[in-house]
Amino acid sequence: MRIEKFSQILNQKNIDIALLMQSTDIYYYCGTFANGVLIITKDNQKILFVRRGLQRAQSETNIDVRYMNGFSDIKKFIEDNNIKSDTIGLELDVLPASFYIRFKEIFDKSHIVDVSDDIRWQRRIKDQVELNNIEQAAKNLDCLMSDAKLYLEENKKEIEISAKLEYFARLRGHQGRSRMRMFNGEIFMGHVICGENTAKVSGYMKPLSGKGMYPTYPEGASLDRIEKNKPIIVDFIFNYNGYIADETRTFVIGDLNDELKKGYQFCLDIINWFEDYAKAGVNAQDIYKKTLEKAKNAGYENIFMGVEKDRVKFIGHGLGLELDEYPFIAQGMDYALEENMVFAFEPKLVFKEGAVGIENTYLVKKDCVESLTKFPKQLVQLWYTILNLEKI
Amino acid sequence: MRIEKFSQILNQKNIDIALLMQSTDIYYYCGTFANGVLIITKDNQKILFVRRGLQRAQSETNIDVRYMNGFSDIKKFIEDNNIKSDTIGLELDVLPASFYIRFKEIFDKSHIVDVSDDIRWQRRIKDQVELNNIEQAAKNLDCLMSDAKLYLEENKKEIEISAKLEYFARLRGHQGRSRMRMFNGEIFMGHVICGENTAKVSGYMKPLSGKGMYPTYPEGASLDRIEKNKPIIVDFIFNYNGYIADETRTFVIGDLNDELKKGYQFCLDIINWFEDYAKAGVNAQDIYKKTLEKAKNAGYENIFMGVEKDRVKFIGHGLGLELDEYPFIAQGMDYALEENMVFAFEPKLVFKEGAVGIENTYLVKKDCVESLTKFPKQLVQLWYTILNLEKI
Repeated sequence: MRIEKFSQILNQKNIDIALLMQSTDIYYYCGTFANGVLIITKDNQKILFVRRGLQRAQSETNIDVRYMNGFSDIKKFIEDNNIKSDTIGLELDVLPASFYIRFKEIFDKSHIVDVSDDIRWQRRIKDQVELNNIEQAAKNLDCLMSDAKLYLEENKKEIEISAKLEYFARLRGHQGRSRMRMFNGEIFMGHVICGENTAKVSGYMKPLSGKGMYPTYPEGASLDRIEKNKPIIVDFIFNYNGYIADETRTFVIGDLNDELKKGYQFCLDIINWFEDYAKAGVNAQDIYKKTLEKAKNAGYENIFMGVEKDRVKFIGHGLGLELDEYPFIAQGMDYALEENMVFAFEPKLVFKEGAVGIENTYLVKKDCVESLTKFPKQLVQLWYTILNLEKI
Repeated sequence: MRIEKFSQILNQKNIDIALLMQSTDIYYYCGTFANGVLIITKDNQKILFVRRGLQRAQSETNIDVRYMNGFSDIKKFIEDNNIKSDTIGLELDVLPASFYIRFKEIFDKSHIVDVSDDIRWQRRIKDQVELNNIEQAAKNLDCLMSDAKLYLEENKKEIEISAKLEYFARLRGHQGRSRMRMFNGEIFMGHVICGENTAKVSGYMKPLSGKGMYPTYPEGASLDRIEKNKPIIVDFIFNYNGYIADETRTFVIGDLNDELKKGYQFCLDIINWFEDYAKAGVNAQDIYKKTLEKAKNAGYENIFMGVEKDRVKFIGHGLGLELDEYPFIAQGMDYALEENMVFAFEPKLVFKEGAVGIENTYLVKKDCVESLTKFPKQLVQLWYTILNLEKI
């Protein structure tokens, strides 16, 4: 079905054949996370060549699978079967330049075009199987927030809390690692960050980063301790069977100062406004612009989604097999929300003494958006800690 | 120092300027994991442009850092400063094709060459700071194997044990995620796999994969239970401050059958032979060939490092900031081991009923190789389990 749809796109664009090599895209079309080349033609012929693991691939997909040694096997197959290849589509956004150069040498008579955006655009709408996975991921995230509520404790190190949440997440079926499409994009399971660390950013294109344990991985939990009366950001993704949900809650042991509390209320107002406003047919860029406008009117323009030049230029990002899918709720994203799109929406403010914010995973429906992450939206105030209980 | 060395290479090869964009390479040369472009010229000029996180980058590196908006800023800087750019070096093995195409448009008068291999070759020799990190990673892996010895238990699920080992690893400073350079290459923390699952391979270029929890991530622990008298492979990497060590041990609760025990002894013999034979000056390909010869003589040719067509074509891989660095102990790797190279060496056999094997992280010295992972090399036989103790 998915392959047929893609071959129709190829046909419309007069692209004779697509050679897909990113394992995630291959999984999307075939159901097996293979290392090789998936051939799809504009008249819906398909075959998967793998470098390794033929047996597993065959057991997971119902399309024809064969071994390959190198790209020349692909060329031979195309020639032997008289498949037209005047125009070849490749995933130029993820394919290494060296592969592209080698392809141009091998297919020296073909015209090469980029089909990345066609694949990503097709993947924007989730089918029921995909939605079931994301819903399960979202449920598990809500459990994780409950875990955070139980285990957040003054004087514990950020990493101690994060490791505990990660441990429970693994036991609940988190697959451990997750995928981003963007070059240099990477993500572990999530962040447990407190106080001034929540205001630290890195090169990653995320509104908040945290300090991290090392300069080599500049985000997430550090060795610093959780403090009273400071904002604690718990921002996790859950990867269930390859599909990602994303949720953020702001916790505090004790209370926040008025400035941060007011900031949190602003984020909550944005979320509530968004939940009233968004539905199928609403323009993505329009949501972004309206949100920025609200931040500006509230005097938060320079600390919304990061500080000054380090502000990210989105407030939402699509979720699926990758953390950075369509739809992006951002400048330049001039398209309408459609039913069965899924995305994270995450208003966040970065004050000097720390960040506050909230993030849910939303499913677009005809007349509304439904939050798949359902943990209460209020600032989570913990008036006691386990440590205190132990002291009694 | 590292930049100066690289600029000398550029000078020798008459490459005017290198524009590096992979965050890992930028970290290697600058000490900050930035998202942007590192400019290095053949006469040792250097500047780092970042898209985001200027303040953090400035606090972590001592070279000049500035903001950039797009590639055109880079071109403007080069023109404004009259820097020669007739030949430009890029990391073509990791740079997406779309970036390469955009670069060719912007620098339409320049000749573009690949400097990936120059960077990777420079990175093959580790300095003292890098060695300290890898040694710490190796020590933590030994702790992890001790944890495995304590917590492996009949009837527990593979994922339960794996999650526990991962949790302790995080508390000991594992940074969570690790990096591979290879396209589609990915790795989580490691594998706890048992019985027939140890014989399962995937598309990943690793001798063993395991079943995994889902087809979307076809490796590592599954929901299957640990069984008595079956091989249990514990193969983990530890990432300490960005630097990776790699270790595998074979465990069994009870005993293995004679075929598997003999197989394990063969792997142990290979390791012992290797430890006697390898030192600075010894040819990498030569080690690989001699090892294959031994496997052939023992009748293991078709099950060594995988089965039949799914055998991987290496027995060792360099370790550092990435899991796939020089030196590779493999066919075609016709170069000598040098002092302060670090690599994993991992003889493994895949029988129908399961795999056995052993892997250590080695540091090359003048007269020997030193194993940085020091957990005892013997098959780890557990004659009791926690479960049994609890029953007393």
